[in-house]
Amino acid sequence: MFLDRFEKLRNGLVETGFDAAVVNPGATLTYLTGLSFHLMERPVVLFYLPGKDPVLVLPELEKEKLKSLPFEFQAFFYGDNPVERFDAFKSAEVNLGLNGKKIAVEPVHLRFLELEYLKSAAPSAKFVDGSAIFDNLRICKDTSELKLMREAVTIAQNAFLKFLPHVHVGKTEFELANTLTTLLLECGSDPELPFQVILSGGPNSANPHAVPSKRSLEIGDLVVVDWGASYSGYASDLTRTLVLGKPSEEQSTIAKTVLAANTSGRRAGKPGLRAGDVDKAARQEIEKAGYGTYFTHRTGHGLGMEGHEPPYMFGENDEELKTGMVYTVEPGIYLPGKYGVRIEDDVVVTINGAESLSDLPRELFVIE
Amino acid sequence: MFLDRFEKLRNGLVETGFDAAVVNPGATLTYLTGLSFHLMERPVVLFYLPGKDPVLVLPELEKEKLKSLPFEFQAFFYGDNPVERFDAFKSAEVNLGLNGKKIAVEPVHLRFLELEYLKSAAPSAKFVDGSAIFDNLRICKDTSELKLMREAVTIAQNAFLKFLPHVHVGKTEFELANTLTTLLLECGSDPELPFQVILSGGPNSANPHAVPSKRSLEIGDLVVVDWGASYSGYASDLTRTLVLGKPSEEQSTIAKTVLAANTSGRRAGKPGLRAGDVDKAARQEIEKAGYGTYFTHRTGHGLGMEGHEPPYMFGENDEELKTGMVYTVEPGIYLPGKYGVRIEDDVVVTINGAESLSDLPRELFVIE
Repeated sequence: MFLDRFEKLRNGLVETGFDAAVVNPGATLTYLTGLSFHLMERPVVLFYLPGKDPVLVLPELEKEKLKSLPFEFQAFFYGDNPVERFDAFKSAEVNLGLNGKKIAVEPVHLRFLELEYLKSAAPSAKFVDGSAIFDNLRICKDTSELKLMREAVTIAQNAFLKFLPHVHVGKTEFELANTLTTLLLECGSDPELPFQVILSGGPNSANPHAVPSKRSLEIGDLVVVDWGASYSGYASDLTRTLVLGKPSEEQSTIAKTVLAANTSGRRAGKPGLRAGDVDKAARQEIEKAGYGTYFTHRTGHGLGMEGHEPPYMFGENDEELKTGMVYTVEPGIYLPGKYGVRIEDDVVVTINGAESLSDLPRELFVIE
Repeated sequence: MFLDRFEKLRNGLVETGFDAAVVNPGATLTYLTGLSFHLMERPVVLFYLPGKDPVLVLPELEKEKLKSLPFEFQAFFYGDNPVERFDAFKSAEVNLGLNGKKIAVEPVHLRFLELEYLKSAAPSAKFVDGSAIFDNLRICKDTSELKLMREAVTIAQNAFLKFLPHVHVGKTEFELANTLTTLLLECGSDPELPFQVILSGGPNSANPHAVPSKRSLEIGDLVVVDWGASYSGYASDLTRTLVLGKPSEEQSTIAKTVLAANTSGRRAGKPGLRAGDVDKAARQEIEKAGYGTYFTHRTGHGLGMEGHEPPYMFGENDEELKTGMVYTVEPGIYLPGKYGVRIEDDVVVTINGAESLSDLPRELFVIE
């Protein structure tokens, strides 16, 4: 499996005129090697130059992890004194002959820290944004990956159903977010969630990226709950909206509008369609209802080993959908100072169109 | 409070010959502004040039978060289409006049992504490792910060005591790690833990950075448990070692040796001492007992808003300890293929010496 993935990376490098790639901890490193490291003060870098064994630079105390690697590699270690790091990077450079080469990096992962060591070890190499390669590497999920993603959705849905009876007037956003987090673990999520639960009530629900506050829920609140699980490193990402007591007319109207947008967005996807057209399919329902200016973000984002990854679903995105791509459809309406509604599902592109991995009811959940 | 912190940053910049600083999401951004963002595909950057209001570049959908900012600032937003980002960075550059300036960056946080936008917006600015400034900014904790750290330790200790009755032969590392994670949240940790629980049994305990596996605990296992809580953004980080059944003679010997090293390391700290001397105090106990080559990592690391931050406790580190510095003391002995012991406490430097924030028993916890 890992050799196939390196082969895919090799093809990507060759097609785009790169000589090599460097990857630091994150989804791509795990995808290629099965190894996972936290991004900390100690740099870890994987070097890949087609035709040679992959090379790793890493702290001595991570040595044990390499025993599981099912392919040939070279590794250079350093100790706790940061002055030792340069030698490890230099050894990797010398092993592969990186000087003068054009090397692809991942802009959302590689840090100034690693970049400075790389530049000092290979001063005449060029380190260039290799997003095009890395984006393609993991964007289409295979059958075994989709199985893990379906399980991540199942865990998230089960946790949400167990969570609903805990929601009452008087509970704070913060304590309810913690309850849902705990239930996600109990239902089988990996301990590292793809993102922290967002749970925002009343006026806070009008902020799409709110952090759970100490505000207590009140009767009449809309409550936006945005949560996800991880399973064997693959993420799910769902949103549903609750109402405490009977919804007002306006609350019902915006909830119905967002549901129409979600439905239209979920159904739009198919191989060959522009990613931007999924956004348009969802957005037009909200615009038609006169709330267009209150849908303040893109319709969704890709999902896989990262909580946010390509393809990104914004109107101008011309990227063509392919079978196996997975993305969220998460339209919302946010009325500042009042409340908001968002409904989010995870969708996979199939040869026949698009299938939602998630199937929880999408209407407002009425909490009596 | 935030104005004082910007003033501290200003002094750091002036003393080290920098003109400005850029900070992206992470502990420093939260320390300076109270804002927290996840590091995702959308760049968020704080620009600070002494004498001018701080400037933020961020996605439109984060706008609501700025309402809480208790100081004057400028903000430039961009939408979901990545082509809009350059204009926001350029506006920030123009507002502050960054071209030609020497700008401090945080190497462990700033990514290639932000760096490329910064370079294209201010092509004649120099972006330079500003670790010296950023390391100093948060390294000495004030009374209000120490109060939060003590609470983070209390939560971690309470969770561990509730966790112990769950440990039995036959349970897997993975399920026990999940149980402890859940208990940390129940006991009041912030939902985002400072790091994932490490729980490694039998031969896995000989790997200091093991990831919890599906291996079931067996009689005779040593089990290293390394866990921490977050409270209002401040971390704790503790390790204790359990034994299933009666420990062997060698197990008892290495546990006693590590305890002597922990005690010596905990007591060593005082204002003016070299950080490296804390490492030496702990290490000499292990060397004396003949296990020096099996203590394969530094004695500890600083702790605060980040799980790992300066000061780092390795022998060659000449940095002088100051009151308010907090660091871990976590010596270990790892016998490859057999087992390991680690005992970790969190220590604060006081005018009188060093005080351990944690006080759980440090001997092997015997699980019958």
